Amino acid sequence: MSDVLQALIDALGEEVVMHGAAVAERATSYWDAAPTQALAVLRPRTTAEVSTALAVCHRFDQPVVTQGGLTGCVQGAVASQREVILSLERMNAIEGIDMIGGTATVQAGVTLQALQEAARAQDLLFALDLGARGSCTIGGNVATNAGGINVLRYGMMRSLVLGLEAVLADGTVLSSMNQMLKNNAGYDLKQLMIGTEGTLGIVTRVVVRLHPLPTSCNAALVALESFDQVTTLLSRLQRDLAGTLSAFEVMWNEYYQAATEPEGHRPPMERDYPFYVMLQAEGADAAADRVRFEILLEDAFETGLILDAVVPQSETERRALWELRENFEAMLAGRKTFLYDVSLPIREMPGYVAETRANIAAEWPEARCIVFGHMADGNLHLFVQPGTDDAEHAVCDEAVYAPLRSRHGSVSAEHGIGAEKRAWLGYCRSEGEIGVMRLLKRALDPKQLLNPGRIFDPA
Amino acid sequence: MSDVLQALIDALGEEVVMHGAAVAERATSYWDAAPTQALAVLRPRTTAEVSTALAVCHRFDQPVVTQGGLTGCVQGAVASQREVILSLERMNAIEGIDMIGGTATVQAGVTLQALQEAARAQDLLFALDLGARGSCTIGGNVATNAGGINVLRYGMMRSLVLGLEAVLADGTVLSSMNQMLKNNAGYDLKQLMIGTEGTLGIVTRVVVRLHPLPTSCNAALVALESFDQVTTLLSRLQRDLAGTLSAFEVMWNEYYQAATEPEGHRPPMERDYPFYVMLQAEGADAAADRVRFEILLEDAFETGLILDAVVPQSETERRALWELRENFEAMLAGRKTFLYDVSLPIREMPGYVAETRANIAAEWPEARCIVFGHMADGNLHLFVQPGTDDAEHAVCDEAVYAPLRSRHGSVSAEHGIGAEKRAWLGYCRSEGEIGVMRLLKRALDPKQLLNPGRIFDPA
Repeated sequence: MSDVLQALIDALGEEVVMHGAAVAERATSYWDAAPTQALAVLRPRTTAEVSTALAVCHRFDQPVVTQGGLTGCVQGAVASQREVILSLERMNAIEGIDMIGGTATVQAGVTLQALQEAARAQDLLFALDLGARGSCTIGGNVATNAGGINVLRYGMMRSLVLGLEAVLADGTVLSSMNQMLKNNAGYDLKQLMIGTEGTLGIVTRVVVRLHPLPTSCNAALVALESFDQVTTLLSRLQRDLAGTLSAFEVMWNEYYQAATEPEGHRPPMERDYPFYVMLQAEGADAAADRVRFEILLEDAFETGLILDAVVPQSETERRALWELRENFEAMLAGRKTFLYDVSLPIREMPGYVAETRANIAAEWPEARCIVFGHMADGNLHLFVQPGTDDAEHAVCDEAVYAPLRSRHGSVSAEHGIGAEKRAWLGYCRSEGEIGVMRLLKRALDPKQLLNPGRIFDPA
Repeated sequence: MSDVLQALIDALGEEVVMHGAAVAERATSYWDAAPTQALAVLRPRTTAEVSTALAVCHRFDQPVVTQGGLTGCVQGAVASQREVILSLERMNAIEGIDMIGGTATVQAGVTLQALQEAARAQDLLFALDLGARGSCTIGGNVATNAGGINVLRYGMMRSLVLGLEAVLADGTVLSSMNQMLKNNAGYDLKQLMIGTEGTLGIVTRVVVRLHPLPTSCNAALVALESFDQVTTLLSRLQRDLAGTLSAFEVMWNEYYQAATEPEGHRPPMERDYPFYVMLQAEGADAAADRVRFEILLEDAFETGLILDAVVPQSETERRALWELRENFEAMLAGRKTFLYDVSLPIREMPGYVAETRANIAAEWPEARCIVFGHMADGNLHLFVQPGTDDAEHAVCDEAVYAPLRSRHGSVSAEHGIGAEKRAWLGYCRSEGEIGVMRLLKRALDPKQLLNPGRIFDPA
């Protein structure tokens, strides 16, 4: 047994330190059922145990990979045999909800869905929402600055975090559990932990902001002729729905076609419109909100802005409509697919999509390039299906990422960089910016022990 | 002439480097007409000139104080004779507005009001708003993470900044001019500059988020019996106005009494209610919004939640009502006053106000303690008028800040720390937190040249 493993067991006990065959019984991630590789998996129950774990690892120069719900898309939490995994899975308590202040205090390992449900039980909303809600954790949401479907209205995770507690590389506990919307007393240190993918510290507890629970919900699937009309519709709804527009999800025709193939969803409208938008508004006045929503849609239809619309008449119908956008298992099944998450200025999207399609067609003439996403946030997802099993990931990456460069886009809108996109970071961040990232890394984790090699190469 | 001054003139020219008698012709700040003290005032016209200026100062170990609109409340931009001032006043261009993306790109020296007006000309809203709008600059708003009256709905400046460009202590230009709502490609470096009061870099250009311009506005002044009723009203309006509530400004009785003294404003309602709230909702449907607003007020009145209400019947009346809250010159005139800006959990406010009043009464039996603020943000302002000219600032500070400690409050909600509150930072931030702030300062500004001694003592 290695010295560090023995020291971890001595300090934390066998109950906390999983090693040997037990490690391999765990799946690598949500996406990969292969056995976990790691020197050990630490499962601390308290911040003090996280601190002890990191202090021991620091003494032995032992690299540590933090794990939350393992739903991340960029290989940020996948360890090697030489690394120790620290999982927050046991720190899953909801410590309290302040109904007057509209805040919740939770441990980092609580799942997004558990927090959503606890808030809802108090007639409050935790506004972050994304497909992985049942598995992903608040700590992971903080580390990746998670986005999802409500960003347009409520912002990304960064906007929802009021305070947090983190453990630094040497085991120091940094507590900044602010509960107020406003606090300008010195540097806002939580920003060091949000979106830095566990490279500067391990988040152990979080204070989040809650919002009033909307009581009305109006949704529609609409079809449009051109991207210009999509942006016009977005501007109009943002203005006329006055802060209640919560989702505006665009699907290019190819997405809709793929989603409504025979093995997929029943198409709620014709399959040959150039663009489809799934939109949703949430308010507090059921009758008035419905009237306004329908008037806006009717007006858009009469003026030719939208070509068709399906408005669900029940909660069941509304959920079925969302399945089109959220459940894309069928279109992926059995096909080699590369998944992307990019962002760019909205005005650049048509040119970007055209150039990316051309790049992919030049490489693989039979390829399918499926585009959709949180367009109002500047965020597109792409599924590229080359149609051939020997297609190389890096070749596809180049085809998708290169057209971002001149358009000031980003190779990661909401998934982060992890290990997977590290080679492409330079496509959207300058040498100077990456230099400052490394400077921060050296300042806070001089031994480069926390999630090493994620985001950028060690300095 | 000193070596550094000569080197600055050689590098930038007399046109940029103001020195000698011309420096003393400038007022110290908005609050202090005394002559400016500084070795020189640099007024660069471009980012390149800011970079050159800092590179020269770095070579000579010359401390630099950055100035924006000089409306800050915490002595953050007041220089000493040994310091060089760098003013962004000439970098005041609005470079562009992207109507599709809803962004504006501006130089740091543009005033808040100029940006608000440029956005409004395109039917868009720049949502930050505060009393100093005519003088304060976007760069200063970034450096202090400015708050103001719309935070409840739109967040602080941090939520409105998408990207920025800054010059580091050695003259390096760090450009992170992101235009998207979502960008998780590596560390979000702009967070290093937001709210760090110019101690880590000088912001030169900014990309901000714009919102749709609301087209309806409903306001009211209401009176309530207890703080519990104030929080109940807040919860109810946040829920029922569904994202359109933009201001909820609470005034304790003493504020209202002081504001409506004979030399002040005409009282729009009785002067003896325990609490007054100025509230405002902004939407996009004038007729429906007004109906909903009035129904909510009527309901609150009929159920006894509010005791009285004044609803302005015209824009002139609405502005007059806001004067009560925004124009407090008369209550300050001729009286020694200490101004405070604190934040704390809303549930703690009644206890906090009681304890602070008791502390002040114990010190100065004739004192007036006027409390009001952006209560929904956890933010209170206090005007303490000891009633005696020999009252010491530090004694009053202790009376106001000490009761925050056990309540997890902050000595600065939105004004920052600057030089004025530096001694009190430890009342709301731990040694560990201040240690990490110093670590960041040393990493980015190892010679401690940028706004030295603001926020915390040099390490």
